[in-house]
Amino acid sequence: MADRLALFTGGQFADSHAKTAHGILRYGSRDVICVVDSTSAGSTAEQVVPYARRPVPIVPSVTEAAQLGANVLVIGVAPFGGALTDEWRAALLEAVGLGMSLEAGLHTVLAEDPELSAAAGAAGVELRDLRAAPPGLSVPPAERPDATVVHTVGSDCAIGKMSVTLELDSAARARGMQSAFVATGQTGIAISGWGIAVDHVISDFVAGAASRLVHEGAQRAPLLFVEGQGALGHPAYSGVTLGLLHGCKPDILILCHRAGSTDIDDYPGVPIRPLPELVQIYEAATTWVDHPARVRAVAVNTRGLDDAAAQEELVRVTAETGLPASDPVRFGGDVLLDALELP
Amino acid sequence: MADRLALFTGGQFADSHAKTAHGILRYGSRDVICVVDSTSAGSTAEQVVPYARRPVPIVPSVTEAAQLGANVLVIGVAPFGGALTDEWRAALLEAVGLGMSLEAGLHTVLAEDPELSAAAGAAGVELRDLRAAPPGLSVPPAERPDATVVHTVGSDCAIGKMSVTLELDSAARARGMQSAFVATGQTGIAISGWGIAVDHVISDFVAGAASRLVHEGAQRAPLLFVEGQGALGHPAYSGVTLGLLHGCKPDILILCHRAGSTDIDDYPGVPIRPLPELVQIYEAATTWVDHPARVRAVAVNTRGLDDAAAQEELVRVTAETGLPASDPVRFGGDVLLDALELP
Repeated sequence: MADRLALFTGGQFADSHAKTAHGILRYGSRDVICVVDSTSAGSTAEQVVPYARRPVPIVPSVTEAAQLGANVLVIGVAPFGGALTDEWRAALLEAVGLGMSLEAGLHTVLAEDPELSAAAGAAGVELRDLRAAPPGLSVPPAERPDATVVHTVGSDCAIGKMSVTLELDSAARARGMQSAFVATGQTGIAISGWGIAVDHVISDFVAGAASRLVHEGAQRAPLLFVEGQGALGHPAYSGVTLGLLHGCKPDILILCHRAGSTDIDDYPGVPIRPLPELVQIYEAATTWVDHPARVRAVAVNTRGLDDAAAQEELVRVTAETGLPASDPVRFGGDVLLDALELP
Repeated sequence: MADRLALFTGGQFADSHAKTAHGILRYGSRDVICVVDSTSAGSTAEQVVPYARRPVPIVPSVTEAAQLGANVLVIGVAPFGGALTDEWRAALLEAVGLGMSLEAGLHTVLAEDPELSAAAGAAGVELRDLRAAPPGLSVPPAERPDATVVHTVGSDCAIGKMSVTLELDSAARARGMQSAFVATGQTGIAISGWGIAVDHVISDFVAGAASRLVHEGAQRAPLLFVEGQGALGHPAYSGVTLGLLHGCKPDILILCHRAGSTDIDDYPGVPIRPLPELVQIYEAATTWVDHPARVRAVAVNTRGLDDAAAQEELVRVTAETGLPASDPVRFGGDVLLDALELP
């Protein structure tokens, strides 16, 4: 039976942490029946989040989702810390009771949860953990395969690095280039069907996981767009960011930023460094392992600004950094793709 | 029955990767009966590795260790990648068959290995995994407890950061200061009896694990010496290093280096940056999360040099960096402790 998805967002559909739901709607090719969200119920997804670009209904509970014919409930939020809450647990158990399989990218492993596991067994449904690490991970080999690796890095997490990466890949393929999107997080995996959630592997193997993805990617295409994770200035996730950066050994970096952000969203009071300093920080970090890469462009998330304000912001970012700037989600990926100066 | 340890080093006792065995011998207070090492058998531990400071015999096989009365076989090597090899497996199974418990800090979890687990069950012995992550880890809170945190960082892994940290703690306590050593790796845990192997937790929680250790440490003493891991320039482990650095939020850094090393040991051809640049790199990285710390001294591992050459090297390092330099393993921790300018 084909998957018919309901995206569960626990009242946070309008929030950037519901990025998994937003990403599946905008970039995925899977059949989405509805969003389940008590706060936004009654609207359509694109009314609440225009980025989502799909007019699927938002229903208030799992019961309505089942009535609409959904057979898989996807956790569509990447919560800070990645754990399953009691409130969500109740909804998941209800979904299982209604015959729905579950798909999630939490750090809490659904299949290892005794209550969910027993309920799923009784109902004959699947528990899919997108973040589960593949077997056999280790440290990276010294050599990187012969491919051009473009990597998105950022000023914070949940600001749109995955979207920028997908837009670039899409723009490249539209020009007839052979390219591939390389997923490093649960949403990217839900969209593209392969990848490793590098933030869930044991920390000694983050770089090894990134390296494995580049080796796998190089079998698919000679031009790879590797999705970034976290930020070097994020107090919780910086280690993931650096391990991924050193493991994928990029040739070219794109710096991603959300217009107007001044502090790390999860740690108010921890300032985001100025963009020119972030460019310098990421470029310097690539030299530490003797594989220097330059930031060639800045991707700016202008969601929330009108078109004129967005254009102004791009002009300001270019003046500040000396680099081409665009919002590929809003204006398409061509400006950034040109800035990469690919061979 | 009290533990009587045999330290298994798989033919590598003389190598720096046998740091777990070396550390337990030098800094531990546990009863070590012998080392099991086919290459170095016939000598005593301190004849092969003077640093070890204990004249325990080195025997060629597990059989001899059992005959000497050992009842726990400790894996004394931290192999690159941390996996269990087939050769070691045979020795471990032999030990279990002779009634010995196993203790290890590998990424391979002994208790999850069907063959070892079945053998241990049949023999009635224990399988102890020092690297196992504690339950309930997550991202770090914003606040750090009120303590002075000294953190060792390095130019490579397996160069003696743990030893430097233990020597500093020992020197501080000898002066009547209330201090504690905070173990972040398997050897430190084997020596001190508490800690978290931060390189084995999932990468999203490295900083959270480090933060938890500082919170626990602050309950023990107001001055904490937090053992460093890896290096920011290590192609496999840099993510662990950065997550630990950002999670423990040090006030003071000590840069550790092995005299004469020019390349990352596990990745020949990847150069170690000059010491002044490493000082700048580590200090800069602390500012990214708005918790700046300065490098106050350089700890130089002079093993392999004679006393005169060691002194010359320390003078050279001070001239190069402008910082006090010493080898605390060779000359005691007082020079470095003075350099910290503790309140």
